[in-house]
Formats: sequence, structure tokens, C-alpha cells
Amino acid sequence: MSKNSLYQYGTIGSLMAGAMDGTDTINDFLKHGDFGIGTMDGVDGELIILNGQAYKVSASGEVIHLMGAEKLPYGAIAHFHANHTITVSKELGSEAVEKLVLAKMRSKNLFAGVKITGVFKKMHTRAMPKQEPPYIRFSEVDQPNFYAEEIKGTVVGFYSPALFHGTSVAGFHVHFISDDHQFGGHILDYTVKDVKIEIQDYADLIQDFPKEAEFLDSDFDYSNIAEEISISE
Amino acid sequence: MSKNSLYQYGTIGSLMAGAMDGTDTINDFLKHGDFGIGTMDGVDGELIILNGQAYKVSASGEVIHLMGAEKLPYGAIAHFHANHTITVSKELGSEAVEKLVLAKMRSKNLFAGVKITGVFKKMHTRAMPKQEPPYIRFSEVDQPNFYAEEIKGTVVGFYSPALFHGTSVAGFHVHFISDDHQFGGHILDYTVKDVKIEIQDYADLIQDFPKEAEFLDSDFDYSNIAEEISISE
Repeated sequence: MSKNSLYQYGTIGSLMAGAMDGTDTINDFLKHGDFGIGTMDGVDGELIILNGQAYKVSASGEVIHLMGAEKLPYGAIAHFHANHTITVSKELGSEAVEKLVLAKMRSKNLFAGVKITGVFKKMHTRAMPKQEPPYIRFSEVDQPNFYAEEIKGTVVGFYSPALFHGTSVAGFHVHFISDDHQFGGHILDYTVKDVKIEIQDYADLIQDFPKEAEFLDSDFDYSNIAEEISISE
Repeated sequence: MSKNSLYQYGTIGSLMAGAMDGTDTINDFLKHGDFGIGTMDGVDGELIILNGQAYKVSASGEVIHLMGAEKLPYGAIAHFHANHTITVSKELGSEAVEKLVLAKMRSKNLFAGVKITGVFKKMHTRAMPKQEPPYIRFSEVDQPNFYAEEIKGTVVGFYSPALFHGTSVAGFHVHFISDDHQFGGHILDYTVKDVKIEIQDYADLIQDFPKEAEFLDSDFDYSNIAEEISISE
């Protein structure tokens, strides 16, 4: 695989529609990069890959360092390097930060990686509680929210072009992990205080799929998938 | 690239929305496979890649053997080998043939390649006339239709999972070229008579993009793209 590719295992659409069984091991997933996000078997928590290490933020709020044999149903990962860097040394909300990133990245018609490192004035996340089969739809799961202030850590995630809403989440999909590995999750909003923003432009997307019968033989209901993704992510 | 990958250059959605400039050469495109479909610069005609050779069916009906320097805005290509084979020795319409393929291929949640070789009772195609900038939307272009009977040739194309409608055409997207290279185009419908149907299951999709400023800096209107693709393809 090219070092400038984004690799996606599974799709957000299938995950939302119930393909929640973990099928790819963290060890296999890590062959495709050192920087990424996803969720674990049964949508158990929020996955963060940072510097080649895998962490899960559980619905309890606990951050767990994954060992490699754990399985995921969905994730996106890349070999991260920065094509563009921005430093921000004032309070700025997530919407304003996203505008800075959009203005700096090469194209909104390509996938991009976003890594934001430093001190955050506020961080608001959530984490999916593990589901058991038969799975309900992702959009129907209640998720606990977490709040932190004056926290050091890293935002990890990706920008997807609008046309890819369905297989990915159009726009930004980002997770967070604190430097002390005590706080994290799927980001809802934040305020930066003193950070370095790094952006990677991807040349292409490798879209991989589970090969297990349960996925291959499923008859997914995608009739309302775009709206479900917008609501849930 | 894996020999069991489908490679897509550009997307149907961007093509429909006006990304019609040829940007990838046929020679570069052919590095990713020997079997495929697409269109040429300015949506000039219907591209067929068969046994590693590239042919364009023009709106005039003429079939041209491409030399390699010509450029395309959109195409899908793979190294073809059959995972499943079906022989049909009776008259059967394209909808019935598609049902046979759907029943035989491994999963409707994966991409698949479809190659149908032999004698066709009827073949109905169309071909896009070359457009000049500033491009109108693909769905607004009038396209000449072509009809043939008792014709020997090959159907070349791909099945895309429903979730990929937008970047690809959900379901079957197939082109045709006759054995004598005198007839072809984008298939609207057909009746087989005595054919071999070969199907390839792809493990993954490599989604590549143009890297030219005109594509990267475009502000595409995708507001009605799913319907435009359904109407046009």
C-alpha cells in the first residue's frame, strides 16, 4: 500500500446498519498505518490509533491500551505525516478550527488526515456502549457524554469528501485521547487553547471489507443511512 | 496493488457534476488491470478495456482502438479472473441475466466484475457525445442509441454495492464491444443467446482521484447526484 493512502476497513454505513461484529484484528489493522480511528467489536467504545498504539475509550470513560488480538468492525488508518501545519495560540472553537483546516488542506475533494496536538480549553466527547446481538441500529443507542477542561492531548481523525457520505462521514470525523490516557472519545466539540494542527492530504482511499459470511450475506437496510450518519456522527 | 482489487479513477458523481476533463492516460490506467470501463476526455464516448486493449465507442458509433496517450476523467479497471462461471444457451433478457449473476457472486456487499462472452440475440447501447467546456451536467446530454441483433461480442463491467451509489453506479454498470470491433457502447439492455458469464469477486476497492488543480479546486454540486446517476446510467 502506498504510504500516502487512507485505508478504510468496513464502512460507516454498514456499521450503522448493524455490521457491528469485530472481524479484523488490531494487529492486522495496524499493518495499514500508525494513525487512525474506529470502533471495536459490538461498537464497544471509540478506537484511537496514535503513534502506532491502539487505545479504546469505553462507555465507562476508561481508556484501555489494546494489545492487538482485539477485533474491530470499522476503522480508518494511515501512515501519518504532515503536509501542512498550523499553530494556534488562542482560544478557538472546533467549527473555527475546522474552517482553518479546510482552508489549508489541498482539496475538499480528497480525503485528509487531521492531527491536533496541545492544550485544549474544553473537550466534549462521547463513547459508544458495547452492544450485543441482535444489534439495534447505531442511531438508536444512547451514548454517555464526557467533558474535560484545560486538557493536554491529541485530536486524531479524518476529513472525507461530501460524495463519500454513506461509506464514510462527510466532513470531519475525529476522536480524542489525553496525554495521560485518562480521557478520550468520539469528539462532539472542543475549544483549542495552544495547539499544533497537522494535516495530511491523501492521494487515494483503499476501501476494504470484512470477508466473514455474516457481513457478506447480510441484507442491509440503507434506506435512511445518510441521515442516520449525520445524526449519529 | 493486489491482483484482486478493483481500481477506480475518479468517481461517477464528480463526472456527472462536471469533472469531465481527461487527466489520467490510458497507459497509466492500464497499469491497474486488463479489464474495465470508463469514458474519455470530455466524456467522449464509452471506454472498454478487454484483454489489456483499450477501445472507445464514439457517439458516431465508430469503435476506435486507443493507443495509450489518450486521457480519461473516469474509469474502473481490474486484473480479471473468474471466480464463478455460468453458461447460458437460451434467450434471456438482461434483467434475468443480472439475477443469475447476483445469485452466483459471493456477496452483494462487495464489488464484482462481470464478463459475458458469446452470441447476443439483441444488444442496445448508447454512447456519450464529446462535450466542450464549460461542461453542462452529464444528465442533460442527449445520447445516440445503437441497436444490433445476432451479434458476437463481450459485455464488460462491474457490480457496485448499494452503499457506493454516488461514487460508483449501484448495481451493474456494463459496456459492450463486438468481436469484429464494429459495434459497442454503454449497455441499456440486451438479450443473450449463447454465452459464457464470468464473475470476479473483489476483495477491496482502490479509489484514486485526479490530482489536477481543476479537479482539486472545484466546488461540485452533488445536491441531486444520486438521482442524476440513476437517470443517466
